[in-house]
Amino acid sequence: MLDCGEGVQSQMQKMGLSMMNIGHIFISHNHGDHVFGLPGLIGTMDLLGRTAELHIHGPQQVGELLQFLLRTYYADIQYKVLFYPVDTRKHDLIYEDRSITVYSIPLEHRLPTSGYLFREKPRLPHIKRELMDAYGIPVSQINNIKAGASWTTEDGTVIPHERLTFPAAPPRSFAYCSDTVYLPELKEIVKGVDLLYHEATYLHERALRAEQTRHSTALQAATVARDAEVKQLCIGHFSASIKSEDALLQEARSIFPNTILANEGLVISI
Amino acid sequence: MLDCGEGVQSQMQKMGLSMMNIGHIFISHNHGDHVFGLPGLIGTMDLLGRTAELHIHGPQQVGELLQFLLRTYYADIQYKVLFYPVDTRKHDLIYEDRSITVYSIPLEHRLPTSGYLFREKPRLPHIKRELMDAYGIPVSQINNIKAGASWTTEDGTVIPHERLTFPAAPPRSFAYCSDTVYLPELKEIVKGVDLLYHEATYLHERALRAEQTRHSTALQAATVARDAEVKQLCIGHFSASIKSEDALLQEARSIFPNTILANEGLVISI
Repeated sequence: MLDCGEGVQSQMQKMGLSMMNIGHIFISHNHGDHVFGLPGLIGTMDLLGRTAELHIHGPQQVGELLQFLLRTYYADIQYKVLFYPVDTRKHDLIYEDRSITVYSIPLEHRLPTSGYLFREKPRLPHIKRELMDAYGIPVSQINNIKAGASWTTEDGTVIPHERLTFPAAPPRSFAYCSDTVYLPELKEIVKGVDLLYHEATYLHERALRAEQTRHSTALQAATVARDAEVKQLCIGHFSASIKSEDALLQEARSIFPNTILANEGLVISI
Repeated sequence: MLDCGEGVQSQMQKMGLSMMNIGHIFISHNHGDHVFGLPGLIGTMDLLGRTAELHIHGPQQVGELLQFLLRTYYADIQYKVLFYPVDTRKHDLIYEDRSITVYSIPLEHRLPTSGYLFREKPRLPHIKRELMDAYGIPVSQINNIKAGASWTTEDGTVIPHERLTFPAAPPRSFAYCSDTVYLPELKEIVKGVDLLYHEATYLHERALRAEQTRHSTALQAATVARDAEVKQLCIGHFSASIKSEDALLQEARSIFPNTILANEGLVISI
């Protein structure tokens, strides 16, 4: 889960998502609209009988909120909430498992803020079942072949690894940047990602207001997307003063055509 | 506002209620399902430009939450949040203005908890406009007559106060009791109120569970209503384990027929 605003539970329920599937929560910064769903979520997970650890990553201030909540409301919950402070000035590897790596992205907002970059690890190639059978290759050899081994038949013929497998889909990547003032240097970090979420609080006619409040305009979000040559841009975090979200979309598309609006309930396949 | 759970803002929006009309919030106790709407509500009121003071009443623990929020998130808001600790062991007058009095109701739950009793003050009688005209009574005398004065005509005839006015509707009363174990002595405090809200977390077949968790059953809520001779009972705060709320309603009605369920969005006229 990325950020956790108030009402997240009812929203997940509406979308048929189970909160028990959440292992890690990555929080960008300690503003209410990004964290006020945590108090209730932690309690409901306990009511639902959670025993698995919950891992929460975010700037140090988020840790203070968690400390307060755990001390005041959740001294007796039946699972562990673990907090991992993120250094918001660094682009660092902050999490890794066998399928994914997560990096922090230094952002600049009114208080310490971090974006997150998710990179899927390259997956092993798929085996061609019919050739396994044809060459009589035993099942015990599958992992070796996936890992790069060739196969030598009884008559000494070498069947190269490439012929026995076909490559897995290329690893996917997603970058989440909210909230932040326009940072041209972001393009280096989010270079070529499949999907970039970038906040676009204002239209560019309010660029000064964006600068003052440490937010971005739709045009600026699209500029990052274009300069980073990402595949798709999703913009969100619109100011309540925005009358027409379509105007934001048009502004962004004038710079980076493959842009969509982060509407409530949107599901994006990468 | 009575208690303030997560998602209160979107619920109010759905019902077309303005959060700017809220002057006082009365919190029963510091459990998440009763207070986790406060963090976001306080911030949104500021975003909407509130300058009027916001008065929050509740057990001392709620004050600690407010302190944390004001220090951590709202050091710069443009209005004052004032907290009034409620002594949860006493039935006390805790607020009064020209139209209403509010009393605390000592409840018993897993942590200090208070209910609230709202009593409208008796209103002045209404003036009979047509008699004012008929007797030539000047407008300047209206308040005197409402307050009990008679009127003497030029020929010395005394027109009694009672003839010049008709009585205002009787003052209304509402008692809010959540969360609490069954307390027979509540009947003294909520005696004869127009509307009693009483929690009914369980069916009476789970009376032991109710006792252990310091909650009430529908039958117990209805017993309080019957013994206090209230006019109407509204039950709510149903356990997530309840399959049919109708069973709760039938159980309560077997003791106190004029019972309704506190469904989401319910509006009750008193």
